[in-house]
Amino acid sequence: MIELGEHRYGKSTIRLVKIVRDGRAHAVRDLTIDVTLEGAFGRAYTDGDNSAVVATDTMKNTIYAFAKDRLTGSVEDFAIVLGEHLCGLPSVERAIIDLREHHWTRLRPGENAFRRDASMLRTATVATGAEGSVVRAGVADLVLMKSAKSSFSGFPRDRYTTLRETDDRIMATRLAGDWRYRDARIDHQATFSAVVETLLDAFAEHDSRSVQETIWIVGRAILERHEEVDEIHLSLPNLHHWLVDLTPFGLENDGEIFVATNEPFGSIEATVRRGS
Amino acid sequence: MIELGEHRYGKSTIRLVKIVRDGRAHAVRDLTIDVTLEGAFGRAYTDGDNSAVVATDTMKNTIYAFAKDRLTGSVEDFAIVLGEHLCGLPSVERAIIDLREHHWTRLRPGENAFRRDASMLRTATVATGAEGSVVRAGVADLVLMKSAKSSFSGFPRDRYTTLRETDDRIMATRLAGDWRYRDARIDHQATFSAVVETLLDAFAEHDSRSVQETIWIVGRAILERHEEVDEIHLSLPNLHHWLVDLTPFGLENDGEIFVATNEPFGSIEATVRRGS
Amino acid sequence: MIELGEHRYGKSTIRLVKIVRDGRAHAVRDLTIDVTLEGAFGRAYTDGDNSAVVATDTMKNTIYAFAKDRLTGSVEDFAIVLGEHLCGLPSVERAIIDLREHHWTRLRPGENAFRRDASMLRTATVATGAEGSVVRAGVADLVLMKSAKSSFSGFPRDRYTTLRETDDRIMATRLAGDWRYRDARIDHQATFSAVVETLLDAFAEHDSRSVQETIWIVGRAILERHEEVDEIHLSLPNLHHWLVDLTPFGLENDGEIFVATNEPFGSIEATVRRGS
Amino acid sequence: MIELGEHRYGKSTIRLVKIVRDGRAHAVRDLTIDVTLEGAFGRAYTDGDNSAVVATDTMKNTIYAFAKDRLTGSVEDFAIVLGEHLCGLPSVERAIIDLREHHWTRLRPGENAFRRDASMLRTATVATGAEGSVVRAGVADLVLMKSAKSSFSGFPRDRYTTLRETDDRIMATRLAGDWRYRDARIDHQATFSAVVETLLDAFAEHDSRSVQETIWIVGRAILERHEEVDEIHLSLPNLHHWLVDLTPFGLENDGEIFVATNEPFGSIEATVRRGS
Repeated sequence: MIELGEHRYGKSTIRLVKIVRDGRAHAVRDLTIDVTLEGAFGRAYTDGDNSAVVATDTMKNTIYAFAKDRLTGSVEDFAIVLGEHLCGLPSVERAIIDLREHHWTRLRPGENAFRRDASMLRTATVATGAEGSVVRAGVADLVLMKSAKSSFSGFPRDRYTTLRETDDRIMATRLAGDWRYRDARIDHQATFSAVVETLLDAFAEHDSRSVQETIWIVGRAILERHEEVDEIHLSLPNLHHWLVDLTPFGLENDGEIFVATNEPFGSIEATVRRGS
Repeated sequence: MIELGEHRYGKSTIRLVKIVRDGRAHAVRDLTIDVTLEGAFGRAYTDGDNSAVVATDTMKNTIYAFAKDRLTGSVEDFAIVLGEHLCGLPSVERAIIDLREHHWTRLRPGENAFRRDASMLRTATVATGAEGSVVRAGVADLVLMKSAKSSFSGFPRDRYTTLRETDDRIMATRLAGDWRYRDARIDHQATFSAVVETLLDAFAEHDSRSVQETIWIVGRAILERHEEVDEIHLSLPNLHHWLVDLTPFGLENDGEIFVATNEPFGSIEATVRRGS
Repeated sequence: MIELGEHRYGKSTIRLVKIVRDGRAHAVRDLTIDVTLEGAFGRAYTDGDNSAVVATDTMKNTIYAFAKDRLTGSVEDFAIVLGEHLCGLPSVERAIIDLREHHWTRLRPGENAFRRDASMLRTATVATGAEGSVVRAGVADLVLMKSAKSSFSGFPRDRYTTLRETDDRIMATRLAGDWRYRDARIDHQATFSAVVETLLDAFAEHDSRSVQETIWIVGRAILERHEEVDEIHLSLPNLHHWLVDLTPFGLENDGEIFVATNEPFGSIEATVRRGS
Repeated sequence: MIELGEHRYGKSTIRLVKIVRDGRAHAVRDLTIDVTLEGAFGRAYTDGDNSAVVATDTMKNTIYAFAKDRLTGSVEDFAIVLGEHLCGLPSVERAIIDLREHHWTRLRPGENAFRRDASMLRTATVATGAEGSVVRAGVADLVLMKSAKSSFSGFPRDRYTTLRETDDRIMATRLAGDWRYRDARIDHQATFSAVVETLLDAFAEHDSRSVQETIWIVGRAILERHEEVDEIHLSLPNLHHWLVDLTPFGLENDGEIFVATNEPFGSIEATVRRGS
């Protein structure tokens, strides 16, 4: 007996730019959106019956049409509206909206000219089903470094261990994190900004004995200071910076000159949450 | 009460090339490996206690050392050996080895010169725990097209639907799929090759009424013909090819001239498995 | 008669991070450097004679060693020092240093924690030969948009022209530009910042009838206001934003909702210079 | 006096797929095309006068329209036809067509299903002006390795040199090369195939004392065996494979286990040509 297991489908990388025209002053909204639907689509697979299959082209059209009047505030609120619409279609049981917001800043006062700020992506994932919407907000591509207050020692040694213990190393990462809100309906703009500030505060200030500890400290700070958040997932790849051996050239290198590397990298991720 | 939830860590993108020197004739093995460990590492997060944390640098060293004598056959067998070793370390409960094999073909008989064949990646994921190893083999970056026997019609229409029904379209995809073997210890080289042949056969021969149906037909064919496989997951992004409107130029375009696009794309994935 | 024509070689993508430790407060310098040498290396090609070939590994070592004491100011000054050293080696006639500087900003006052600002790369190309060094400074990956003051009309129409004229469109680009300084020895930090400010001013303020005109206006402004600059090359890919047709959904779209695209794109580049 | 210097513009990354329908059996042509025009476009820059500016959208339309009836043989022949058309437009002095052909192979006899072969790109650059067309054919993304017959020694040593001499190393490269034909009108399919075979033969068979010597040997072989070619430019980045030190683990590593790296890499390029 062969059967269909889990299945999902949707449209990915829908690129949407909205120019918000408020009198003479424009604002730019720039989103990349993935839509995924789950539901009673099994017969499309097993019988070639498309009568329940919302075309992914229709999903794309829906997003552009909704953007016109309903993309007026936070991306989370926009995703909730989209999710509720899609979840109301026949056969759809769950709609997941994943999006990234690209931030543009005005170049000069009084001019409708903008510069894309690539130093962080804002992300949101909203899953909408019969029980309502679950909202996760987040950040990605946030490249951070600590040049002090980072050590790594006390790890076990076996015959394959050559790494030296260090009480002072560079920690560099391309942080991605997303956190779940207890309630879907909150002031998303303010809350997002506040959580990011806490994240940056905690990252900057703490003493780290490992990337693992950094995840815990940053995650716990966010949960402690933001009661709206009931869970956060953090992924902090460890982008190694290797001290260059300058002794062949008659030079010391006391934590000054490093090779930055992309691969291999450490991959460390965890969830911090409110317990029961 | 704030607590640590799920957590995992490891080393990603370990690049390993082995020159197998069998007399005068060499062979090239070229792997990219990710290692992930799960286990009793909680105190590294919450207490900065690294006494259980196998350094990711040690994981890397282990792989290079093991490659010397134990990378002699399939990548699946190599990953099992690695997983068993890592799982034997204190605090480790589960080791996951994810790898991609890059294939090189000899350029000319008698010469140790090779060309990298980028038309497909071979993948393997081996999860090893107390209960032994679970092996998934797979392929990625397999770019396929059907220029016939592909249609899409009968889908529901709402106010946001503009897509036309078609009984003849291009289906193009960058297929990724991986399948789980009932037993970890099989002849992996032969089985892998046989499964890929079935996959290509089924993809080439079938009539498709949707990407969903293609997934089902390909997945079912593999399960029917390969009893070693008890589940397959297939992801077939729909890389749209849009017919160009040539009428402004006084030309017909009867399925000849297309714009190939990358974004947005349809994302369709499902698991096909043996039922009970 | 077969002969060797132009040839050059070097080392690319040397990744260098320097932590400048000025008491308790660190600063981060983060460079990616390409070195290219031209000179009397012909016999390495035609005779396998490496006696003149500075190993590219040596170039890399040289950069790390020089970074220790001589990367103290602008990247241009560092590249001049490197170029002069390399040009002093036997057989080297010209050394070209191409580099990108990645900018990090302090996260919080008093903490040695930083965030990488990816919204622009600073570039420099310094070519050093017997006649001294020629310095080009520049920017890359500067993503800009004008949502007003951009039009495109009056272009010729032939049987393949379908584009409509528009007096109001989005202009978006990933600007790359580099300019040559009359003298190599100037205050590079101040001059670079001033030129970039002029570039952003001009981009924001002008009315554009084409990307071509934008290049001219921006380039001319820089030459007018910065006598240190005697030539600027600007590349402004035209990243099209297509207005979405919302009429099937009963909605107007008066310059609000766009699809952002990556390909195809317009490619427009030109040099603006001081004439004789 | 500020003036306009060199300028050029066009459309990049035009993605074209043609299904050639020859009875029941299809063939797939898959091209990515860049068009660049040079000519009397100065007033577009300096005066905002677009009356001579062929819209890049028109270039794109032209390519799709021409593909219908004139993409019947080699990409070089197609590019010549396009170049001649574009060069016939007012104000155009030179049209450059740069293209990459992506190769698809039939999956199964009798089925119109195909697999994209990513192990090499075929490239062509055709520059057409008043004097006719100049054709360069080429290859890119051709990843090659020699695991024998490659050495590097005899290079000069200074205080920054740490690299050891070796009489046996891996040479790996992502080769890009393009060669100019004496005449634009030749049998491009046959000639291209023959030149690539020579390139692979020469790469496989020769003994290399440096990447530089490899360039010379490969380039000379092509010029010697193909009188249609009067010049070839070869770029062979040196993708380093570092021998892993396994002695800490009690293992020898006699040219077996390597780390493959992407950065930094050596960059070596040269032209080989017929002299006078």
